[in-house]
Amino acid sequence: MVNDARGTLLAVRETVQSELTSYLTLQREYLSGIGSELIPVCDALESFLLEGGKRLRPLFAYAGFAATGKVATAADIRAFTSLELLQACALIHDDLMDRSDTRRGKPAIHRHFENLHQQEAMSGLADQFGEAAAVLLGDLALVWSDHLLHTSGVENSALLSALKVHDEMRIELMAGQYLDVREAGERSPSVDRSLRIARYKSGKYTIERPLHLGASLAITDAAERKDLTNILSAYGLPLGEAFQLRDDMLGIFGDPSVTGKPAGDDIREGKRTVLMAMTLERADQASAAKITAALGREDLTSDQIEEIRALITATGAVKVVEDLIEGLLSNALTAANSDEIDPSARELLIELATSATRRSH
Amino acid sequence: MVNDARGTLLAVRETVQSELTSYLTLQREYLSGIGSELIPVCDALESFLLEGGKRLRPLFAYAGFAATGKVATAADIRAFTSLELLQACALIHDDLMDRSDTRRGKPAIHRHFENLHQQEAMSGLADQFGEAAAVLLGDLALVWSDHLLHTSGVENSALLSALKVHDEMRIELMAGQYLDVREAGERSPSVDRSLRIARYKSGKYTIERPLHLGASLAITDAAERKDLTNILSAYGLPLGEAFQLRDDMLGIFGDPSVTGKPAGDDIREGKRTVLMAMTLERADQASAAKITAALGREDLTSDQIEEIRALITATGAVKVVEDLIEGLLSNALTAANSDEIDPSARELLIELATSATRRSH
Repeated sequence: MVNDARGTLLAVRETVQSELTSYLTLQREYLSGIGSELIPVCDALESFLLEGGKRLRPLFAYAGFAATGKVATAADIRAFTSLELLQACALIHDDLMDRSDTRRGKPAIHRHFENLHQQEAMSGLADQFGEAAAVLLGDLALVWSDHLLHTSGVENSALLSALKVHDEMRIELMAGQYLDVREAGERSPSVDRSLRIARYKSGKYTIERPLHLGASLAITDAAERKDLTNILSAYGLPLGEAFQLRDDMLGIFGDPSVTGKPAGDDIREGKRTVLMAMTLERADQASAAKITAALGREDLTSDQIEEIRALITATGAVKVVEDLIEGLLSNALTAANSDEIDPSARELLIELATSATRRSH
Repeated sequence: MVNDARGTLLAVRETVQSELTSYLTLQREYLSGIGSELIPVCDALESFLLEGGKRLRPLFAYAGFAATGKVATAADIRAFTSLELLQACALIHDDLMDRSDTRRGKPAIHRHFENLHQQEAMSGLADQFGEAAAVLLGDLALVWSDHLLHTSGVENSALLSALKVHDEMRIELMAGQYLDVREAGERSPSVDRSLRIARYKSGKYTIERPLHLGASLAITDAAERKDLTNILSAYGLPLGEAFQLRDDMLGIFGDPSVTGKPAGDDIREGKRTVLMAMTLERADQASAAKITAALGREDLTSDQIEEIRALITATGAVKVVEDLIEGLLSNALTAANSDEIDPSARELLIELATSATRRSH
């Protein structure tokens, strides 16, 4: 059964890949018709979108659709695929705001365009050009995401129903992103505030709303799908928090060859995660001082990273976070087994929950 | 007759203002429910959107609707108003990309949040926080623009018809913005390339597409409105170029107390405008060298700006640009008087054309 679910998800992932490929081919034709200067934009977005990505949001939308008992058509999967373009906007703008150099082991979009500027010995400031390109490529991906949803070929009633969920999801995403950026400016960390950010950025945006989007395309009447919507929230919100907590763990303990990010990246970036807030809450004064001094220092050696990792583990925060992940996962699995969920979707939801929380990248 | 048109446009502008106010009030309630940290986001966007702006795009959408002979309802005007939120995104991101300090005489959004960071003695880098806030506030305005269009209350068929124009407009906008940013990296200016940018950024985005959007809400069948669409393009494209050329003139010769931008701002920013490309095409070697040396220098004194202005005028480029504006305006007016345009809309289009090209800010 689990293998069947895994097979289905792999097949959906391949369809998402081929839908993205077709969409980007069409857009390349359109943009290069406006001017050949736009070809590097198409190249960069193709590489960003097609060479990597877990396709989590389209997969959750697929599972939300399946939870109604209906079978998604090609048009529905095209609509789910639009979430990957929205996510591209979020990541491109995120890397710019965080001043991250890499994404999936390759230069972040703003660095890529900064490099292009230098290679072509263009006039003006290379970093300013890179930043501007990242702003615009993110904006373009956001607009494309809408466009792909609108032209997916789903029935008008399904589209109108999906737009409501889609708008709410995007407003929550931007609010969550702002809270995250704002958090970096706080003078001291807070477990509560970090958990709230995890709820908006991951609980809602990554999991709950994609599930709702899928369900809203299958059952267009919001009242009719109300009970299912609630169960999908009961599954999606804890799972989303667990997903973000796993991200926190990988940001500090992840293997760079698997994550595509430098070792201990969240330490170097000084990221205000739940794991870090819990660590500092538990650390003795000397350890807390050492950890705080290391946060945001880009020049940490691997020995220093190793030392900070050991300090974090010694506080017990890792154990607490791992237990929290297991507890949240268990809540999600209980919801997945509820009667409101069509049996055909249960194994999908279970497989997705497990892979989202026990992943290594 | 002209006074009637002016009165109508003033009334529409007031309705746009009140629709924006209502929408922003609702969004403030929603966002402050998520977290009080989001209140400065609401404050900044309210100030940005409500204290200024010519409302040109909603007015052109209104005129495009009127050109069909139908009368716009409150829901239609709400749909037109969404264009102001899209424009807010474009301006906020534009100021960030150009590293402009001011907008309408007040700090640009990224500077405003940089200032907040300093005033509240927040942790981290103030400029990074300002930039991140500008990225996210622009993104939020873009998503709000969609949301206001979707919830405007227009009939479903009208909404679905408008989405097509709206998507095309936004893709063109982002393409035009990228071409503009890319142009700053070219080692030498080009009248042709700058005219193409003016076509995408202003011809299409500011005028032609808003007109089409209005028409698409009134007549939902694209084939049925084809002739009208073509005439609106015949009016909108030349007028949009003329509008951008007027912008070029104001960017160099505008009165800071009226434009809200520093004197000779385009010189200090080294902007690659059609006016500047024409100037350098016509200037003798000595003048061209002097002008080129001044471009992009933020520390120019007012005497130096005055000297550059005189050199630009001496090349004859100002005369050429003014003649071009008049020629384009005359083409637009011819189209406005075509039989395809409902008589009730003619004076609106004429009034808008005149004010867009003979304005002082």
